[in-house]
Amino acid sequence: MPVQRLLAPGPVPVPPAVLEVLARPAVHHRTAAFKSAVLRGRARLAEVLTVAGDDVLLVSGSGTSAFEAALLAAVPAGATIVAAHAGKFGERWGEMARAFGFEVVDVTAPWGEALDPEAVAAVIRAHRGAAALTLVHSETSTGVLHDLQAIAAAARGASPELVVLVDAVTSVAAAELRPREWGVDAVVAGSQKGIMLPPGLGYVWLSERAWARCPARGDRVPTFSLDLHAERPLQRRGDSGATLPVPLVLALETALDLVLADGLEARWRSKARCNEAILAGGEAIGCRRFAARPSPAVAALLVPEDVSAGALTNAMAARGVRVAAGQDAYADRMVRPSVLGDADEFDALTVVAAMEAGFLDLGRSVPVGEGVAAAQRVLLSPAA
Amino acid sequence: MPVQRLLAPGPVPVPPAVLEVLARPAVHHRTAAFKSAVLRGRARLAEVLTVAGDDVLLVSGSGTSAFEAALLAAVPAGATIVAAHAGKFGERWGEMARAFGFEVVDVTAPWGEALDPEAVAAVIRAHRGAAALTLVHSETSTGVLHDLQAIAAAARGASPELVVLVDAVTSVAAAELRPREWGVDAVVAGSQKGIMLPPGLGYVWLSERAWARCPARGDRVPTFSLDLHAERPLQRRGDSGATLPVPLVLALETALDLVLADGLEARWRSKARCNEAILAGGEAIGCRRFAARPSPAVAALLVPEDVSAGALTNAMAARGVRVAAGQDAYADRMVRPSVLGDADEFDALTVVAAMEAGFLDLGRSVPVGEGVAAAQRVLLSPAA
Repeated sequence: MPVQRLLAPGPVPVPPAVLEVLARPAVHHRTAAFKSAVLRGRARLAEVLTVAGDDVLLVSGSGTSAFEAALLAAVPAGATIVAAHAGKFGERWGEMARAFGFEVVDVTAPWGEALDPEAVAAVIRAHRGAAALTLVHSETSTGVLHDLQAIAAAARGASPELVVLVDAVTSVAAAELRPREWGVDAVVAGSQKGIMLPPGLGYVWLSERAWARCPARGDRVPTFSLDLHAERPLQRRGDSGATLPVPLVLALETALDLVLADGLEARWRSKARCNEAILAGGEAIGCRRFAARPSPAVAALLVPEDVSAGALTNAMAARGVRVAAGQDAYADRMVRPSVLGDADEFDALTVVAAMEAGFLDLGRSVPVGEGVAAAQRVLLSPAA
Repeated sequence: MPVQRLLAPGPVPVPPAVLEVLARPAVHHRTAAFKSAVLRGRARLAEVLTVAGDDVLLVSGSGTSAFEAALLAAVPAGATIVAAHAGKFGERWGEMARAFGFEVVDVTAPWGEALDPEAVAAVIRAHRGAAALTLVHSETSTGVLHDLQAIAAAARGASPELVVLVDAVTSVAAAELRPREWGVDAVVAGSQKGIMLPPGLGYVWLSERAWARCPARGDRVPTFSLDLHAERPLQRRGDSGATLPVPLVLALETALDLVLADGLEARWRSKARCNEAILAGGEAIGCRRFAARPSPAVAALLVPEDVSAGALTNAMAARGVRVAAGQDAYADRMVRPSVLGDADEFDALTVVAAMEAGFLDLGRSVPVGEGVAAAQRVLLSPAA
């Protein structure tokens, strides 16, 4: 029974100090102590999103719930939405918008490539009335970090009225993300990713501009449990419409203090270096990197043609290292390890070591040691 | 703030499932539930010592307390004791015996070497009246696994009356240890080593032969809290003279189920392979192995002449990897990593990676990647 290591792009390993908080006895959510925890947690989340002082609203649910809340809060019913995507999660926001009756125009790129800011801008220009752009910053299905700064700038240039809604589920606390400076209007994410909590809590930031331009109640698709307009005044005093997931809220401050401990920029650099080490290690043992512009949150590696990615991830899991396989057309062609959560350089090395071992377990010849050596050279390269 | 990894030869990392048990609410020790836990834990300890069905007695205290209990229970006051040692812990049992007024004859080998069974036997033959032999199975200060089977056989051959008292503090659950088959009379250890609990609980096994030959009360050095003769009937019904460390006892079964999960022999092989990987990785980056006969519980590596082991372990600790430095004359010359506890192949690789990084942090030139590659080749060599 090997030591269990969770090195997938979420849910992620939770730090021991956070687990300790999660294990504390129940408290009531209508107490001063809990309200104070809500306020402190929300303030820390704003720091992690580089929007200190702004409202970040908590949502009982997942990152998907958070995206839904932002979409319904900020976009008028029936509006046209440009859905930019080059992967499974980007597609999902188009599907969500269609499900709520929005008019959706897609702009895509092949899986593995980065969205072209000019292509996105061209589609926006061709649909002058579009109210919103949806996109994913770190596309977890392909391992691509889309160039949010450039896309947001191009989209704004094409239509100053447009609201830019961003899924930052796996980019928060892993990749550079400066929504205020980049002209982003909404950022959504979930607890089980870069902020190192278990799943169950989503969160949303809307820009001041977005709040100022939100449609009136009668012009919005109705929602109740995800109504950010109702939540905002409540959460500003530490309250909430429905019961929040109390232990997760109580643990927010501890988790985010850890995220912020060495500074956000150092964290971004460390995650990128670890991810690059996994990619380099994988290449040294016969895999191919998939993402044209790699996200630090996930290392998408195509396995050799004659290897089943599912068999490889199972072999790695049998040695205690749990990574994700691919999705959709790449389900059996790709592995997706990650150091998104409470994981570091040594975990990056562990991923590569487990891939070497997994290949051997599958009866494949592999240059044992070359993967870990290549990874280690990245980890210890001079800029470290 | 890096992830913290404890890879020293004890205290060791405690598995999450054990931490969960340790965090449970307090129970009273004079309850049926606790007595049942005592009995189950003692039975499991006997399995781990390969003496299933025999009495293993629990001691509130450390491995040192356990050694003291065994010594005072099994050896008549004022007797002559042969103390075989080639390291700090072996020396300690000689000191302990002197402190209690025993007549102590030393038989030694240089640090790093293995005790010679014939040399031990010769000293025993030269002191015909010696009542006991004390020795350490896995000498943690030097990384040597002494050949307990051969030494016990030689000692018995030299004097059939002799009681063989063995410190198995770091060999239990790490190295092959068959005290009944090897003719050993007492085995002592502590909780914070191979059985993966926090410190605070010692344990002692005495052979049936030793119990049958124990001196009468009036012939023993007096003790109260460590009186195994008083404890034996109590612990056989799950009771104890004084309060046992309740959480540690409650967690024994969970910890030992993990130790036994894949079979003891598989565990011994895995620890030995991991330890050899650390030694090979260290050699590839300029260290020298110290132990003539390496213990799987600790990888004793001499650092290069121009490196301070203390500085190296500090540099590794700054990266979150805590290993031990050397002791006494080797304090600043040796590092002693270990995978004794809840640690595995990937932790062995982590140790070597952290040593490479630590050397770089100290400004030393190092063939980056060669250490981890060498370690990985050992870990994935065909016998794996």
